[in-house]
Amino acid sequence: MGATDRGSPDYKPLVAVVGAGFGGLSVVRGLRKAPVRTMLIDRNNYHLFLPLLYQVGTALLDPSEVAQPVRGVMRSVKNAGFRLAEVRGVDLDNKRLDTDHGLVEYDYLVVSAGSVTNFFGNKNIEEGSIGLKDLTDALTLRNEVLQRFETAKWTTDSEVRRQLLKFVVVGGGSTGIECAGALAELIRHVLKKDFKEMDISDAEITLLEASDSLLAPYVPKLRAAAKKKLEKKHVRVMLNTAVEKIGENELQLSDGTIMPASLVVWTAGVRGAEIGSALTGELQRSARVAVEPTLQLPGHPEVFVIGDLAYLEQKGAPLPMLAPVATQQGKRVAKNITALMKEGRPAPFKYLDKGFMSTIGRNAAVVQAGPLRMKGFFGWLTWLFVHLVLIISFRSQLSILTNWAWNYVINDRPARLIIKSQGQTQPANRLDAP
Amino acid sequence: MGATDRGSPDYKPLVAVVGAGFGGLSVVRGLRKAPVRTMLIDRNNYHLFLPLLYQVGTALLDPSEVAQPVRGVMRSVKNAGFRLAEVRGVDLDNKRLDTDHGLVEYDYLVVSAGSVTNFFGNKNIEEGSIGLKDLTDALTLRNEVLQRFETAKWTTDSEVRRQLLKFVVVGGGSTGIECAGALAELIRHVLKKDFKEMDISDAEITLLEASDSLLAPYVPKLRAAAKKKLEKKHVRVMLNTAVEKIGENELQLSDGTIMPASLVVWTAGVRGAEIGSALTGELQRSARVAVEPTLQLPGHPEVFVIGDLAYLEQKGAPLPMLAPVATQQGKRVAKNITALMKEGRPAPFKYLDKGFMSTIGRNAAVVQAGPLRMKGFFGWLTWLFVHLVLIISFRSQLSILTNWAWNYVINDRPARLIIKSQGQTQPANRLDAP
Repeated sequence: MGATDRGSPDYKPLVAVVGAGFGGLSVVRGLRKAPVRTMLIDRNNYHLFLPLLYQVGTALLDPSEVAQPVRGVMRSVKNAGFRLAEVRGVDLDNKRLDTDHGLVEYDYLVVSAGSVTNFFGNKNIEEGSIGLKDLTDALTLRNEVLQRFETAKWTTDSEVRRQLLKFVVVGGGSTGIECAGALAELIRHVLKKDFKEMDISDAEITLLEASDSLLAPYVPKLRAAAKKKLEKKHVRVMLNTAVEKIGENELQLSDGTIMPASLVVWTAGVRGAEIGSALTGELQRSARVAVEPTLQLPGHPEVFVIGDLAYLEQKGAPLPMLAPVATQQGKRVAKNITALMKEGRPAPFKYLDKGFMSTIGRNAAVVQAGPLRMKGFFGWLTWLFVHLVLIISFRSQLSILTNWAWNYVINDRPARLIIKSQGQTQPANRLDAP
Repeated sequence: MGATDRGSPDYKPLVAVVGAGFGGLSVVRGLRKAPVRTMLIDRNNYHLFLPLLYQVGTALLDPSEVAQPVRGVMRSVKNAGFRLAEVRGVDLDNKRLDTDHGLVEYDYLVVSAGSVTNFFGNKNIEEGSIGLKDLTDALTLRNEVLQRFETAKWTTDSEVRRQLLKFVVVGGGSTGIECAGALAELIRHVLKKDFKEMDISDAEITLLEASDSLLAPYVPKLRAAAKKKLEKKHVRVMLNTAVEKIGENELQLSDGTIMPASLVVWTAGVRGAEIGSALTGELQRSARVAVEPTLQLPGHPEVFVIGDLAYLEQKGAPLPMLAPVATQQGKRVAKNITALMKEGRPAPFKYLDKGFMSTIGRNAAVVQAGPLRMKGFFGWLTWLFVHLVLIISFRSQLSILTNWAWNYVINDRPARLIIKSQGQTQPANRLDAP
């Protein structure tokens, strides 16, 4: 008899939360004082601050600067536990999650599994490009860019060198323009100094966008500003250009044109995580799961879906796949579960839109919030301020050195992240001299 | 006609330096004002601060806190270039290096390729354990330790859990005791809080040493102090214990005893890098290459070997494989090459022994320098001071935040390290939900 025996009077319901992103953490925090046990499940042992992932890919930040061990985040939440596992399926009727480490029987389920890169079923594109959705993607991008410059250094044939340094970013959304901008700066400012004798204009960055404009959610003035700024940073922007196929050293556009490309970053779309198909037979656009206004799964009031994976329309349009949506939905779900437990009624979710912003390299950004529109340097200062505040609250760590000394003193290890590496499947990768 | 044409009057000899460790960097810096071109070659694009590598393995430090892009280090050295390549062989007669990116014709060659983990030819041990000599090793160790705790969390069988958490460090040298000490603290102080409901005493760390004492180079008093300190940190120290074989969940000692072991870290020895066998037919103990007192390769006055790979006796004993030896030898070689170019005579190398130190976790270290002996907390303060000074001079970066803002302003990317990851061989590793 006790908190975990269903028959006991002091039984505490188990709330399983799938995904330790912004949505999942928000639910767990929201339930910290509720008479429940929450079990957060993720395939990684860290929470990823996705808005800055492109900065890992372009070598500004280290993995542990954008990722935080879930167990560290959850330490102060007494009624929460964490499990590292891959969720394979959901048995909605028997209220059971199937994971690669065993079954989890839940009373309430919150699925905040997020989204993955959408290759639109094109295997060829999937194999020929790098996404930008997790730490492995970002480290791969960083490695591949740097490796190409190192290889180019050995070449005396300028044709071969120019071919090696053709970088293509596909997708003119926020991730695409942030990545292209940061990549341009990495090359034009930093690698230029690292590879002094190399003509840096041999390196070329092209941004491809299938529609007729970058940054669709923004007003036309800001879209144009972003394009102009990218071009000023020597990024070639091609609108109305869709990719059909990616080959060894080239890609084929939908009009049949062949374009040389050494490395392709694919940011042209995201889709709901695979688990969505275990929740419904009818996925919405971008493989999202339609939910009630209360964020409940139709027919299963004990199951909630939030964040990128959830499909909910408001003001005539689906809610965007953004961190603030997931965070706000997490709070709502925590309240709705509490209400259900008291046999009350769950309330519908209302998104409070605080606006959005995208940065274009080091000194420019576009910001759109309510009636406010900002661009250029002031936009960038705003972006920097907001992200500094976010990253400080995300990870209250002020310096590597004090960090190091401090973590020695207080006995913490901020870098305890399981990052997939070659070594994880085989004991170690040892190469010989030099 | 010019600096690179051998026939030209202003021809500048090419000094090829293999290995960007402490020795290699020291040579390049020493030759910064000499009328030569230096070409530094390494298989990684970073210089690794090996003395702190175990802290990456035990999740205190991030890769970019102990590794520094070589091109960044070399930026101020005008006559130096860097090439990323794997050296496959040396044609001493034709003065040619064979690399996986092509041939390099040198006038002088400095081989500072360092050492690798010595598994003493035992394939079984090599496959069953993790070394601690490069970033991949350290990240693998970190991943594997954390993964075992996460897996243990799923287990209800306490026998299985205890088996999962049996960590064995083989080798009672400096690396072994530093690793065991740091691992004990990671588990006893940090993971204890992360895995609250788990009985942390289920985790067990054993340090195996084949000889009758830890830390052979130290005086007996300090050896005993190190052992006592480790035991106080709950590390089981077993002396006179050699490993014969490593199995799936156990290891076999040389006396036939079977010991359960979930994860084995192998620090029981190092040997000179593979390239040594291309330099001589007769390798010395630990696969090192015997050199003249001037650090020249016998019979090849234009070739120098330094650091861990070089075998040179002084005061009746071979010089230890330590960073200060490599650094001092690098300086000597730079002077000797300069002397040879002026048709002068190279001078013999003399090692100035400044002592050595090893830390045992967070608040204890042993220090032996000349007549000086320190242990416990004062030893640790000394260790901390020396390493803080070293790491500051190694990487003059004071905080992640100022770093981040600062690097934005000055356009640097401190994290541009090519770390081998799954992604380096295949474009990306994408897993589906959650």
